[in-house]
Amino acid sequence: MRRRIAVLGSTGSIGCQTLEVVERFPEKFEVVGLAAGSNLDRLARQVLKHRPRMVSIARKEDLPRFRAVLPGEIKLTCGIEGMAELAAADEVDIVVTSITGTVGLIPTIEAIKAGKDIALANKETLVAAGQLVMSLAEAKGVKILPVDSEHSAIFQCLNGENKSEVRRLILTASGGPFKNKSREQLADVTVEEALQHPNWSMGRKITIDSATMMNKGLEVIEARWLFNIKFANIKVMIHPQSIIHSMVEFVDGSVIAQMGIPDMRIPIQYALSYPERWENDFPKLDLVSVGKLSFEEPRADLFPCLQLAFEAGAAGGTMPAVMNAANEQAVEMFLERRIGFPDIADLIERVMSSHDCIDKPGLEDIIRSDCWAREEARRLANR
Amino acid sequence: MRRRIAVLGSTGSIGCQTLEVVERFPEKFEVVGLAAGSNLDRLARQVLKHRPRMVSIARKEDLPRFRAVLPGEIKLTCGIEGMAELAAADEVDIVVTSITGTVGLIPTIEAIKAGKDIALANKETLVAAGQLVMSLAEAKGVKILPVDSEHSAIFQCLNGENKSEVRRLILTASGGPFKNKSREQLADVTVEEALQHPNWSMGRKITIDSATMMNKGLEVIEARWLFNIKFANIKVMIHPQSIIHSMVEFVDGSVIAQMGIPDMRIPIQYALSYPERWENDFPKLDLVSVGKLSFEEPRADLFPCLQLAFEAGAAGGTMPAVMNAANEQAVEMFLERRIGFPDIADLIERVMSSHDCIDKPGLEDIIRSDCWAREEARRLANR
Repeated sequence: MRRRIAVLGSTGSIGCQTLEVVERFPEKFEVVGLAAGSNLDRLARQVLKHRPRMVSIARKEDLPRFRAVLPGEIKLTCGIEGMAELAAADEVDIVVTSITGTVGLIPTIEAIKAGKDIALANKETLVAAGQLVMSLAEAKGVKILPVDSEHSAIFQCLNGENKSEVRRLILTASGGPFKNKSREQLADVTVEEALQHPNWSMGRKITIDSATMMNKGLEVIEARWLFNIKFANIKVMIHPQSIIHSMVEFVDGSVIAQMGIPDMRIPIQYALSYPERWENDFPKLDLVSVGKLSFEEPRADLFPCLQLAFEAGAAGGTMPAVMNAANEQAVEMFLERRIGFPDIADLIERVMSSHDCIDKPGLEDIIRSDCWAREEARRLANR
Repeated sequence: MRRRIAVLGSTGSIGCQTLEVVERFPEKFEVVGLAAGSNLDRLARQVLKHRPRMVSIARKEDLPRFRAVLPGEIKLTCGIEGMAELAAADEVDIVVTSITGTVGLIPTIEAIKAGKDIALANKETLVAAGQLVMSLAEAKGVKILPVDSEHSAIFQCLNGENKSEVRRLILTASGGPFKNKSREQLADVTVEEALQHPNWSMGRKITIDSATMMNKGLEVIEARWLFNIKFANIKVMIHPQSIIHSMVEFVDGSVIAQMGIPDMRIPIQYALSYPERWENDFPKLDLVSVGKLSFEEPRADLFPCLQLAFEAGAAGGTMPAVMNAANEQAVEMFLERRIGFPDIADLIERVMSSHDCIDKPGLEDIIRSDCWAREEARRLANR
């Protein structure tokens, strides 16, 4: 029987690559739902190709125009509610949450409540609501399968291992385009420079997060929840070649690493094929032609966002949601050239320091804190 | 209950490190048997420390002298029969076969017949008699736990994985002290130079085997049997830092690697603790201070022994036993300064080419071929 997939955020980088993987295994999968926001032309092409039973778009005002290009039998909804309804529908076995931002949180929770396995690519789910989501997933017996290359790597390194024998997780980071700059040089970097990632081709938001290393900070918080491990036992290491996607060090001194070429289709496929591995024709890693792998400590002076993430994680409660929302807002303003590159970390820090953290937050607390943090970031930037 | 261990070859490098590991976990292990050949003083100290119930030594003529220094209740035997009796004794749960050479083959087979798990450090067991030993182990439901760092690495990388999803095994090799020499320079290398291994501190025979890369050739044949994989799917890669101990590439393009500092106590401990991992105070790997890991293809012109091993493996039957025995004899003659370094490979090749290979050999065929190959190597060297 084919697994019935819903893809939230199907027109983004991960969404498109997910559909590319799915197309390679037509005997394994059936696409039953697609949801997207900004790129309706691409979504229309995807719908005509994959013929899902349900489609959801972001804005209500686009419904009539989009309805006109869809085959009649397809159910069309809109907004967060529409996406949540699609994710939780009876016809769905697994939901790929490749949508960016807090907007992915509610549909993901609804999918878990409905007992769907989650191929998790939405960072905010665990950053903002890690405790809530993981305990819900456990209660529902739902698998949370990481799509991120780093978490997929750790997930694979833990195959057949006992989690109580883990000494620490080592998350690798390329260090982005600026790891060899001086602090002064960072003040002048342009949006174009920040969008030049050395190894990975990704969306704009995550590419900027890689340049600030906030991306790694978010991944640290995700790893804390996904693998139920203390922050003190998570280490970030710069590995410019992005070949080792992450590692697990065990108490006996053995380190298990997962490697591969930087190609997101590999971890996407693993999340969908798990616990199996399927043969594919993606280019294979050739370590001899890579030649060498190198490792450095991340420089705290260059990457204050990494420290902020550890601090937000340690504070717990609504603080990670606030940090994440402030970061989203700050990155947006940087991309709009309204603030400079170092202002991203400064803004996040100021928003965090004026936040009254709520312990053991419910979903509403999280969403309210998220909204507050965005407003606060805008307010501080406009002063 | 403590696991009852017998160590064959307890005074060699692996044997001593095995006892060092065992001493760190007195609540886990009881040493019930020790066997050794050449270093009776060290053996006597080990016996007085670990108080095994059985001891076996190589030569009958040493029995009276050695008996005199042992506590009276200890059972003392000698020769291959004595070692085999010790390995198969009722009191033993697991046998560490850290003895070098074909002499370890019969006791290992007797131990498997008696249903003992094997922590395998004796290369000849699988090189000379892989098919025979593995089918016997399967029939007896006995675990063969690799001690070699490379095979331990692969064994660990396969934890929780499906062997049918393996694309290839990648055995790493330091390349030894001569990997950057020219072919001409190899003609003049001395015994002392060949004994300078860049990363590992090991016995003399295996250190020379590392310089010729015959060690890797033997490991390729062992890997073929341990992991039931075709020679065509085993790749050897030079990795001078000896940090990645080996890797497994899966059909989906993921590569899982096991790393650690070059310290044999880690794989020894794993063979004894498997499937658990136990905390220890061995120095831990710090990739940032290692700085970089590099990878090269082994040069066929410099390392003809590697090719000979693949050829012997492909020929099958008694050929790997003959290759191994010719190599042991050639290395011995090199250490005695009777032949030069490049003569090792030349001699092995000539012995192999004059061997009438026996298909599906029994143990007697293997031992007879082994003896023949040693004689033939001596005869050819003395001509």
